[in-house]
Amino acid sequence: MKEKVILAYSGGLDTTAIIPWLKETYGYEVICCCVDCGQEEELNGLDERAKLSGASKLYIEDIVDEFCDDYIVPCVQANAVYENKYLLGTSMARPGIAKKLVEIARKEGATAICHGATGKGNDQIRFELSIKALAPDLKIIAPWRDSNWKLQSRQDEIDFCTAHGIHLPFSVDSSYSRDRNLWHISHEGLELEDPSLEPNYEHLLVLTTPPEKAPDEGEYVTMTFEKGVPVSVNGKKMKVSDIIRELNTLGGKHGIGIIDIVENRVVGMKSRGVYETPGGTILMEAHEQLEELVLDRATMEVKKDMGNKLAQIVYEGKWFTPLREAVQAFVESTQEYVTGEVKFKLYKGNIIKAGTTSPYSLYSESLASFTTGDLYDHHDADGFITLFGLPLKVRAMKMLELQKENNKNN
Amino acid sequence: MKEKVILAYSGGLDTTAIIPWLKETYGYEVICCCVDCGQEEELNGLDERAKLSGASKLYIEDIVDEFCDDYIVPCVQANAVYENKYLLGTSMARPGIAKKLVEIARKEGATAICHGATGKGNDQIRFELSIKALAPDLKIIAPWRDSNWKLQSRQDEIDFCTAHGIHLPFSVDSSYSRDRNLWHISHEGLELEDPSLEPNYEHLLVLTTPPEKAPDEGEYVTMTFEKGVPVSVNGKKMKVSDIIRELNTLGGKHGIGIIDIVENRVVGMKSRGVYETPGGTILMEAHEQLEELVLDRATMEVKKDMGNKLAQIVYEGKWFTPLREAVQAFVESTQEYVTGEVKFKLYKGNIIKAGTTSPYSLYSESLASFTTGDLYDHHDADGFITLFGLPLKVRAMKMLELQKENNKNN
Amino acid sequence: MKEKVILAYSGGLDTTAIIPWLKETYGYEVICCCVDCGQEEELNGLDERAKLSGASKLYIEDIVDEFCDDYIVPCVQANAVYENKYLLGTSMARPGIAKKLVEIARKEGATAICHGATGKGNDQIRFELSIKALAPDLKIIAPWRDSNWKLQSRQDEIDFCTAHGIHLPFSVDSSYSRDRNLWHISHEGLELEDPSLEPNYEHLLVLTTPPEKAPDEGEYVTMTFEKGVPVSVNGKKMKVSDIIRELNTLGGKHGIGIIDIVENRVVGMKSRGVYETPGGTILMEAHEQLEELVLDRATMEVKKDMGNKLAQIVYEGKWFTPLREAVQAFVESTQEYVTGEVKFKLYKGNIIKAGTTSPYSLYSESLASFTTGDLYDHHDADGFITLFGLPLKVRAMKMLELQKENNKNN
Amino acid sequence: MKEKVILAYSGGLDTTAIIPWLKETYGYEVICCCVDCGQEEELNGLDERAKLSGASKLYIEDIVDEFCDDYIVPCVQANAVYENKYLLGTSMARPGIAKKLVEIARKEGATAICHGATGKGNDQIRFELSIKALAPDLKIIAPWRDSNWKLQSRQDEIDFCTAHGIHLPFSVDSSYSRDRNLWHISHEGLELEDPSLEPNYEHLLVLTTPPEKAPDEGEYVTMTFEKGVPVSVNGKKMKVSDIIRELNTLGGKHGIGIIDIVENRVVGMKSRGVYETPGGTILMEAHEQLEELVLDRATMEVKKDMGNKLAQIVYEGKWFTPLREAVQAFVESTQEYVTGEVKFKLYKGNIIKAGTTSPYSLYSESLASFTTGDLYDHHDADGFITLFGLPLKVRAMKMLELQKENNKNN
Repeated sequence: MKEKVILAYSGGLDTTAIIPWLKETYGYEVICCCVDCGQEEELNGLDERAKLSGASKLYIEDIVDEFCDDYIVPCVQANAVYENKYLLGTSMARPGIAKKLVEIARKEGATAICHGATGKGNDQIRFELSIKALAPDLKIIAPWRDSNWKLQSRQDEIDFCTAHGIHLPFSVDSSYSRDRNLWHISHEGLELEDPSLEPNYEHLLVLTTPPEKAPDEGEYVTMTFEKGVPVSVNGKKMKVSDIIRELNTLGGKHGIGIIDIVENRVVGMKSRGVYETPGGTILMEAHEQLEELVLDRATMEVKKDMGNKLAQIVYEGKWFTPLREAVQAFVESTQEYVTGEVKFKLYKGNIIKAGTTSPYSLYSESLASFTTGDLYDHHDADGFITLFGLPLKVRAMKMLELQKENNKNN
Repeated sequence: MKEKVILAYSGGLDTTAIIPWLKETYGYEVICCCVDCGQEEELNGLDERAKLSGASKLYIEDIVDEFCDDYIVPCVQANAVYENKYLLGTSMARPGIAKKLVEIARKEGATAICHGATGKGNDQIRFELSIKALAPDLKIIAPWRDSNWKLQSRQDEIDFCTAHGIHLPFSVDSSYSRDRNLWHISHEGLELEDPSLEPNYEHLLVLTTPPEKAPDEGEYVTMTFEKGVPVSVNGKKMKVSDIIRELNTLGGKHGIGIIDIVENRVVGMKSRGVYETPGGTILMEAHEQLEELVLDRATMEVKKDMGNKLAQIVYEGKWFTPLREAVQAFVESTQEYVTGEVKFKLYKGNIIKAGTTSPYSLYSESLASFTTGDLYDHHDADGFITLFGLPLKVRAMKMLELQKENNKNN
Repeated sequence: MKEKVILAYSGGLDTTAIIPWLKETYGYEVICCCVDCGQEEELNGLDERAKLSGASKLYIEDIVDEFCDDYIVPCVQANAVYENKYLLGTSMARPGIAKKLVEIARKEGATAICHGATGKGNDQIRFELSIKALAPDLKIIAPWRDSNWKLQSRQDEIDFCTAHGIHLPFSVDSSYSRDRNLWHISHEGLELEDPSLEPNYEHLLVLTTPPEKAPDEGEYVTMTFEKGVPVSVNGKKMKVSDIIRELNTLGGKHGIGIIDIVENRVVGMKSRGVYETPGGTILMEAHEQLEELVLDRATMEVKKDMGNKLAQIVYEGKWFTPLREAVQAFVESTQEYVTGEVKFKLYKGNIIKAGTTSPYSLYSESLASFTTGDLYDHHDADGFITLFGLPLKVRAMKMLELQKENNKNN
Repeated sequence: MKEKVILAYSGGLDTTAIIPWLKETYGYEVICCCVDCGQEEELNGLDERAKLSGASKLYIEDIVDEFCDDYIVPCVQANAVYENKYLLGTSMARPGIAKKLVEIARKEGATAICHGATGKGNDQIRFELSIKALAPDLKIIAPWRDSNWKLQSRQDEIDFCTAHGIHLPFSVDSSYSRDRNLWHISHEGLELEDPSLEPNYEHLLVLTTPPEKAPDEGEYVTMTFEKGVPVSVNGKKMKVSDIIRELNTLGGKHGIGIIDIVENRVVGMKSRGVYETPGGTILMEAHEQLEELVLDRATMEVKKDMGNKLAQIVYEGKWFTPLREAVQAFVESTQEYVTGEVKFKLYKGNIIKAGTTSPYSLYSESLASFTTGDLYDHHDADGFITLFGLPLKVRAMKMLELQKENNKNN
């Protein structure tokens, strides 16, 4: 009996060509698995296409809610942002996909998993580290790094498919290299490969209107959170995935969340990409807006470091590690009181705060204002400054003293 | 002979009332010092006003260039931002002012320095820590915390002035509490004291047009940096202070740099403020845009922590400390190659990147793109992933093994 | 009816004198509470002494096990060490004591809590921050900072007691200032106040034999841990408090855990102390020894930062804060597999490792040794180094290129 | 004309066998270079041996002082310790060696550098990253990872040498795998490969007497530092290399600096080693002892993180990077006042502090002691605690209030 391989399948040219290649090169029975994280691709006809290409079976697995609850929410709670800009859209999806591939592999008794990620990107790392962590016994096949893989262009791939009896309407032209899911869409390639060039936004944007073309009227939005989890938009309770969909619509309309970045890949080189994250950008800003009110200073400070750390971990594909679990435990602990309502206005690329409330607000009007009250007497500041500045002053006196001695001696 | 006190003087009601109070309460000869950091206040007639109020002398000291070169530039190079939002406009100015006050005190042989900061804010700390560090032998007088200070309202102050023969046209009404210098203007008070309320931007903004009223046409700007220092805007070489002035004009016009924040003060409470930093926001973004191209990943990561650290230090008034010097030494070392040109478009509150170049760019198009070359073979990723994922895999195998043993034993 | 105050009572001169002072100065009914964290003081007769001094009641509360389980264990798991040396013996005990005082206050309907800590130390902060966090409505009385407290010496206190009819055999002589509990004993004062002097160990040590006088024969000890919690010593299962007692005996005998440190107090000055922590030193080393085997590198690195952070938090008295909870959640998450056995030899101040085992050990002999195996091929290192070193190499090539261009142009 | 390769040559079997292998496999002219970092090996006859083995030339380069001044001192100043234990002896030496190899390569016009490090260790990374950073155009040859290298055992190598006419008295037996230089000696292999076994110290130790066999009399040592650089031992001024030699003698005699560690290699696995660093351990402790007196708390805290960071960088072979330069700049800035004298006693593995002095000491006896003085009034602590504890208290009051409301509602 043939060994089985689970192929992460999108229906595109690359992963379609991999099907006959896997059969021919390694003699596998190929089981395709298309994991849906909200990429909004045409899934109709995918089954037929996979079979036509020689796969013995196609799984279509919808993990959108799991993606939201298990991956997106923890990253939002941590305010995890890679290199100050990137909201980790692709990075967060990979472990969920890998987990599903491993599940199917176990169910099917497969011995290998195959993915179509290239040898220069981050995704190969994210897929493979997740698979190694969840199923270290499974073989991993990455055709683009395989010395048996000879196809170097889209034309090669089309020819290869044709030669294997697969006649599908793939185009030779390549566009931007894109990755999309519920959270974002990323763009690489074409003019973006030269960082001195402005992105051709007219051509490029998929989810978002450019700010210049967004409506002239701003739009107010309110959101509520419970323990750091978003629960409603404009008064309507929704599950997280629907909240993100709603915010994508709102943010897309108002030109929110377009990022142009030169980032450092795990594999050692810089690359330039444009990301659209309309809903995600709003969600993270709204969450931060609420945290300003309910987290104390010391917690915010350390949490910022933990958020940066989580961003590194997720970017590097190390989701299924003890460190990610520990960082997440830290973050979850801080979310206990991140409950309340935030209001903001969307306007041509801007998210403008318009008021925040929380039952757990640590803001106290009487304390912040000029008045002296029970909690705080202006004179208390005397003692505080004396002690807070004591190390400085002791040092300065010591230096003064040494200077005087030196002067005396000279 | 009377002892002399140097009073940080603005010409406003508070510091004017302090003059007779100091004379009467402590018998000092009062020497006023107005340190100009670019607050664009009326300095004409200030001398007369100070004398009329009983001061024996008024110094007007312009430290705008020193403020830019010694305080702003290091913070920009560090990307120092307090609590993700605040660009430290007031915080950066305080040590420079204190330094000048100490200089005047030494020149005049004064024994004390007096400032008008209240007992609930951060500025008292920033002034006093700087003075302690530079002149630990000088006495510091903070009337608002002084038990001899009995004036509790503007009306009290006006009455006090009148009673001491000072007849000046001060208004009883108070507006927002503001602090302005070349870098920014801050606003506190009135409706801002309730974080659930949207700021009344129409009423409030001084430097910046609200995005809604900014021009419908965006405007391209180019800037160049040498070793992390801004040197030109739109092709014109300028000193830093002029660059900030130019960027203030451009940013103000296009609605850039309005921040609404609930922040944590050093003295322990949360306060809510709005900051306008039009030029500063552009300058920091532009600098980061260039760093993306020339700094390696590891340096960026640690520098982010150092920038957060510097923001804390500056916010807390600890400028004149060994730690600030050490952090600055770190940051300066990273700026060696932060040289190049950035281009961006300003449009209704947005700073949209439009291309970056540097002779020291670490971006390599051939490396980032799909092609295999001398420097990088797709197969190299195999070995990398094997080793990068080794700890994960070893751990997973150990767990698998333990699980099997457990199964056997049960 | 009189208001009640709960006094943290040790039976010593200071807290005894406070009883009549509280009655006389504030008219309180004084309820004493002696919280036992393992200080091994004479508790016999304490009740009589308290009553004789005018207290209406004495509580003696044993919290040794709570101290171990809720405070010590989390700090051991975090390897929390302040300024590289101090094992936080006093710091960890304060929140537990404060919690108990608050409990008694609630039970008694008291309106205030009083402690005898001085105005220059850390303990006042630790007590008061804990009380504020647990019972913000209670008044806190700190006689040593109270302007009504006039007693400046031991003789003053004795006279004051006598004048109030309290005749107890207190000595005028003062020795080292000490704090003792199950975990440690600290010493300050006398020759220690001059950091240029060697401590007079003969005179000073209480728990520990000086290494020079420890036995000439070393002694092997084995310990086991489960999920980061110590569970046995030399094969005997014991609760944590008994483990610490046992290790105190063993460590004390062999001269372990004497620390001489100049540390930075929260209140801003440096102080010099000697700490004896025989059992604690062993416990922390043993725990680290096991972690070496079971924690991966990335987790160890971040955990080290978290441990330092926890040490700061605990030292500063901020136990009852969201940040401490979050850091503890991080640490606990890492302890899941810290299970196994450590063996070491105690010999004249040395803890010498003698072998470590764990079912979850990530050490693999075949992997570590020279041999090539399934998991690792020497050639994998090629790819790893290419990618790991890529940023360096790209940068070096860029610099070489620029240099060549410069040479050409000159 | 043949291309030239520079071979890092030790005179041992491995690097001797590499000479004919390089000539035969790649047709190189082989130039040997033995870089002396204080490994105390027999350098006599090395020239003859290299030539006899087929090398065209041998360089013997003494970089001991450079090793001390440029690599060791910065790491001591940073207190750089890897994973709490390892003093980086091998790690610090590699970049200096690589730099020298590159110098010789440039001088000789060589096109490649060859080293004998294996494919599983850290050293390959350290050598190669340094070479890449300094001379990205040079080819690097690592025979142990080369598919043309067929020798798998010492016997294979001896046979290969013999077959190529090299008759040298190499032994087939292998001992511990060791690396030695002025700073330390490391041991791996044999019983150390099993972490459950106690090291066979009698057999293993080279530089250090086991504590059990060290003299029964302790020995006092004084050292002085200027700006963080050690300048004298026991009153004798010496250059750093001589100080380390002297401390090695003293520390070795008294059983100082033996470390048994399971560490995480860069290449992803754990390995177990024993390190002897007698002088280095003393030097680092002495330096820390002085820093306790002269560094303020905030600087110490951040410096600890920077030291950990430097340890990571150096361990990973990333010496020639902008990040190492920036971290070093931070550290150097902190050393300005690390000047003074430390005294300690060495006794059977213990370094016991015996007094520290510095003209820049921030310790103040009057401040630390109980007395109230000019600088500090006990009452100042009131205000300090009020503000320091304000966030806690505000939070606690908010919670109390919410609780009351809840109670009312239920």
